[in-house]
Amino acid sequence: VTDRIRTVIFGLGPIGAGIATLAASRPDIDLIGGVDSAPDKAGRSLGDILGVETGNARVLDDASAALGELRPQVVLHATGSYLPDVQDQLIACARAGANVVSTCEELSYPWQRHPDLAKKLDAEARSNGVTLLGTGVNPGFVMDTLAVALSAACQRVERVTLTRVVDVSQRRLQLQRKVGMGLSLDDFRASVGAGRFGHVGLAESCWMLARGLGWTLDSLDETIELVAGEGGLAAGMRQTATGTANGRTVITATVQMSAAAERPRDEIAIDGAPPVRMVLEGGIQGDSATAAIVVNAVPRVLAHEPGLVTMLDLPVVASRGA
Amino acid sequence: VTDRIRTVIFGLGPIGAGIATLAASRPDIDLIGGVDSAPDKAGRSLGDILGVETGNARVLDDASAALGELRPQVVLHATGSYLPDVQDQLIACARAGANVVSTCEELSYPWQRHPDLAKKLDAEARSNGVTLLGTGVNPGFVMDTLAVALSAACQRVERVTLTRVVDVSQRRLQLQRKVGMGLSLDDFRASVGAGRFGHVGLAESCWMLARGLGWTLDSLDETIELVAGEGGLAAGMRQTATGTANGRTVITATVQMSAAAERPRDEIAIDGAPPVRMVLEGGIQGDSATAAIVVNAVPRVLAHEPGLVTMLDLPVVASRGA
Repeated sequence: VTDRIRTVIFGLGPIGAGIATLAASRPDIDLIGGVDSAPDKAGRSLGDILGVETGNARVLDDASAALGELRPQVVLHATGSYLPDVQDQLIACARAGANVVSTCEELSYPWQRHPDLAKKLDAEARSNGVTLLGTGVNPGFVMDTLAVALSAACQRVERVTLTRVVDVSQRRLQLQRKVGMGLSLDDFRASVGAGRFGHVGLAESCWMLARGLGWTLDSLDETIELVAGEGGLAAGMRQTATGTANGRTVITATVQMSAAAERPRDEIAIDGAPPVRMVLEGGIQGDSATAAIVVNAVPRVLAHEPGLVTMLDLPVVASRGA
Repeated sequence: VTDRIRTVIFGLGPIGAGIATLAASRPDIDLIGGVDSAPDKAGRSLGDILGVETGNARVLDDASAALGELRPQVVLHATGSYLPDVQDQLIACARAGANVVSTCEELSYPWQRHPDLAKKLDAEARSNGVTLLGTGVNPGFVMDTLAVALSAACQRVERVTLTRVVDVSQRRLQLQRKVGMGLSLDDFRASVGAGRFGHVGLAESCWMLARGLGWTLDSLDETIELVAGEGGLAAGMRQTATGTANGRTVITATVQMSAAAERPRDEIAIDGAPPVRMVLEGGIQGDSATAAIVVNAVPRVLAHEPGLVTMLDLPVVASRGA
C-alpha cells in the first residue's frame, strides 16, 4: 500500500506515545519515524518504544535531519504546551513540507496571546504549502469547538458557561503534579505565583469560543484556587476564566482537576434562545481522547488549504476507526 | 448598507415564517422577498405576514418570476419534507443563481434514498455556481452532525445509540397530527400503512452518521409504534431505525414524539474507546432551533464551493446572534 499518509511523531512523552500508538493502528496512516531527543528514546526503534509494530521506523534526535530524510506528509507533534517553546519545531516541520497536528495548547488559538507568532507561523505554513493545527480535548474540543457547535441551535446566545471536572486520582503523576495535588497551601500559592502552573489553554478555549460566536471580549480574567484534600493538602485545583463583553460576563469557564472530584463531567450551558444544556457524564477522558482527536484530525488537515488554522476552520472532525 | 446578504424566504408555513422572522432580525441579512402560493399570503407585504419590519419586501406566488426579479444570493427554503416534491423549486433557485439552505428533510442526506436526484441537484448547483444544503434540528444536527462531532474524541467507535424524546403536547397541531396524537390503534395502524406518517429524516440521519464515521451500512430498518395515551388513544409515536454493518447493529436511533413524554431530551451514546455519553436535558426545541440552524448556516454555505453539500462538509455552524 503506497497511498497511506506518511506520518512522523514528534515527541514521545506519554501523550505523544499515545498518539503514535493510535496512529500505528490506523490503516490509512504509515508511521515512518519519530523525533525525540531523550537519551532513552533517540536512536531506538519506534516500535520497541511503543510496543507495537511500526516496521523499521526509528526515533531520531535531530528534527531537521529526520524530517529532511523522511519527508513526512504529516507530523503529529506533542512536545510542549507553550508556543514560544515549540515554535522552532513547528517551523522546521513546515519548512520540511509537513502538515502539523499539534497538542501544543497555546497553538489551538494563538491569535490573542501570541499574535505576532501566529502571523509568523501562518506565513511559514502558507509559503511552504502546509496546514498547522493545534488541538486536543481541552483546548481544542470540549470547551470550545463543541460549545460553538451547540450554538448552531440558538437564535441568540447571551452567555456560555463551561464546566469541566476531572478526577485526577487515577491519572498520570505528571498531571497530578501539574494541578498541585499533595501541595500545602503555601506551596500551592507559591506555585501559582511562579506561573506555568495549572491547566494551559483555558484562555485559548475562551478566545476560540468568542471568535466562533463572533464576540469581541473586553477582558478575560483567570483565577486558580486550591481544592482542599486530606490533611489540609491540596487535592488539586480549580481554575476559572471569566470573559466579558460590553461590560457583561459572557463566558465563564471552570476546570476543576483534583483527586476524588465529585461527579466528573463536561458541561456546557448556553443561555440564549433557545437555551442549550449539555452534559457529558463522566467527562471526556483527556489523554485517550486527545490522541483520538489529533489522529482523527489528520484527513481534515490534509484536505485544508495551507495556513495556520483552528478547529473552527475545519469541517467536523470524525472518528475514522474501523 | 449594501453588503448585506440578499435573501428570499421560500415557503411561509410555520417553519418558514419562523426562519424569515429570525432572518429579518439579523444585521447581515437583507430579507428582500418571499415566495408562497397560498392565497392568504401571495401578493401581500412580507412584513405584514411576519409582523416584523422588512421594508418593501413582498410575497409572490410565482417562484421563477420572483427569483428572476429579486436575484437573491440566498434562498431559505421551507416548503416540504420530500425531495421529489420540492426538486423543481430547488432547481429554480439554482438556475436563478441562488444558494439554498432548505429544511427539506430528505435533502439533508439525499445520496442514499434519491441517488439520481442527488446527482442531478449536485450538477445543477455546480453548473450554476451555487451551494445547496438541507439542514434543521433533526435531520441535520442533533442525531447526525452532533454525533459525528462527538466521535472526534473516540479512538474507536463500535456503536451509536441516538435517542430523542419530544413532548408534543404544547407544540403545533400540525406536528401533533403528524405523530398520530389522538388516533385509535386502528387509525394509527392505517396511517402507518398508508405511508408519509411519522418523522421524516430518521433514515437520513442514520445514513449521514454512517457516512461521517466511514461506515457502510448493510441494512437500515425502520419501525413505528404507537405510544399509548388516555382512553386507549395514541399519545404519539415512537419511531426506531436500526442500522447494521458486517452483521452487527451499529446504529440505533429512536425518536419518540408524544404528549406527556417522560424526560424530554436528546441523548447520544457512543460505545467505543473512550465511550461518550451526551445528554441535552429537555432536548433541543425543534421549531425555534431549526430556524436558528438554517439562518446560522448561511455564511458557511456562502463560503463553500458550489455543489450539493451536507452539514458534514461545512466548518462548524455557529450562532452569529448579537
